Amino acid sequence: MPHLHIEYTDNLTGLNERELMRELNAVVCAHPTVADEADVKARIARLSDFYIGNQPDNRGFVHVQLQLMAGRTEQAKKEMSDGLAAVLRRLVPQPAGIMVQLSVDVADMDKATYFKGRL
Amino acid sequence: MPHLHIEYTDNLTGLNERELMRELNAVVCAHPTVADEADVKARIARLSDFYIGNQPDNRGFVHVQLQLMAGRTEQAKKEMSDGLAAVLRRLVPQPAGIMVQLSVDVADMDKATYFKGRL
Amino acid sequence: MPHLHIEYTDNLTGLNERELMRELNAVVCAHPTVADEADVKARIARLSDFYIGNQPDNRGFVHVQLQLMAGRTEQAKKEMSDGLAAVLRRLVPQPAGIMVQLSVDVADMDKATYFKGRL
Repeated sequence: MPHLHIEYTDNLTGLNERELMRELNAVVCAHPTVADEADVKARIARLSDFYIGNQPDNRGFVHVQLQLMAGRTEQAKKEMSDGLAAVLRRLVPQPAGIMVQLSVDVADMDKATYFKGRL
Repeated sequence: MPHLHIEYTDNLTGLNERELMRELNAVVCAHPTVADEADVKARIARLSDFYIGNQPDNRGFVHVQLQLMAGRTEQAKKEMSDGLAAVLRRLVPQPAGIMVQLSVDVADMDKATYFKGRL
Repeated sequence: MPHLHIEYTDNLTGLNERELMRELNAVVCAHPTVADEADVKARIARLSDFYIGNQPDNRGFVHVQLQLMAGRTEQAKKEMSDGLAAVLRRLVPQPAGIMVQLSVDVADMDKATYFKGRL
């Protein structure tokens, strides 16, 4: 069930979308609380229309939201967040003169009303 | 207030976006806990940049998130989730050789701080 | 940490994306519970594929989601929601014959597992 939503500002030239998704997915797939790697579904959006604070020039960001079925411990979620953050630190480029913010949000989804199926 | 966020991977060729939104909306509009059909707001995103698990070839998905004002019973939310899932099963195509995952997430929004208005 | 996610339907011709982001950001940056203006990260998406209710012609919407670190009072969040709503009322155009819905959702993010860093 895990969903990864990745967003990055388009001033981060050189960011390799596919490598970033692969490595972020690998963190989630490898976690002992994730039973089936095929459940990990990542998508990435390159943002061309963004605005950061009130002095927006020369700023960029990468934001990852990981949505998980509720029920994991805070420690398990923290481990995944730390692992995703480490990937961001390793793979996100820093173009000269751009202040780049990185963030990871881990959110629970409601088990009782979630549906999953396969065709 | 209900918001429907629909995402599908672009390898699901033949998916009819407008028909899918119409039928998913119809489920929500018809639910006894939804007072005004005009409140149901759907958008659909065709994902060209995605990555599923760690063996990503020949995989696709359709994911629906339904956001509702908090306060409905679990049963009401389950009814909507089931109805949305049935629409996915009916309308999502399965291209030959692609393993397609379907999912529906029902999420509450906070009533006390939500704003709605009309121009 | 605040994230602003702005969506608008593409029948709202004349909407100025950059002005809207600037003014919405200003509300959040100015709130006493926001320490660093640079933390406020807005992105805007122009929706071309949407469907409103079951009689969808001549309808549009602008929806803002504000994600905040959990811990603020309901009053603080209500103040931000009200401020964002006032900006929408001031800046969103109403094309002739279009019924335009405005909405603001304020959502908490989990502090314990959130990561933020800078390159």
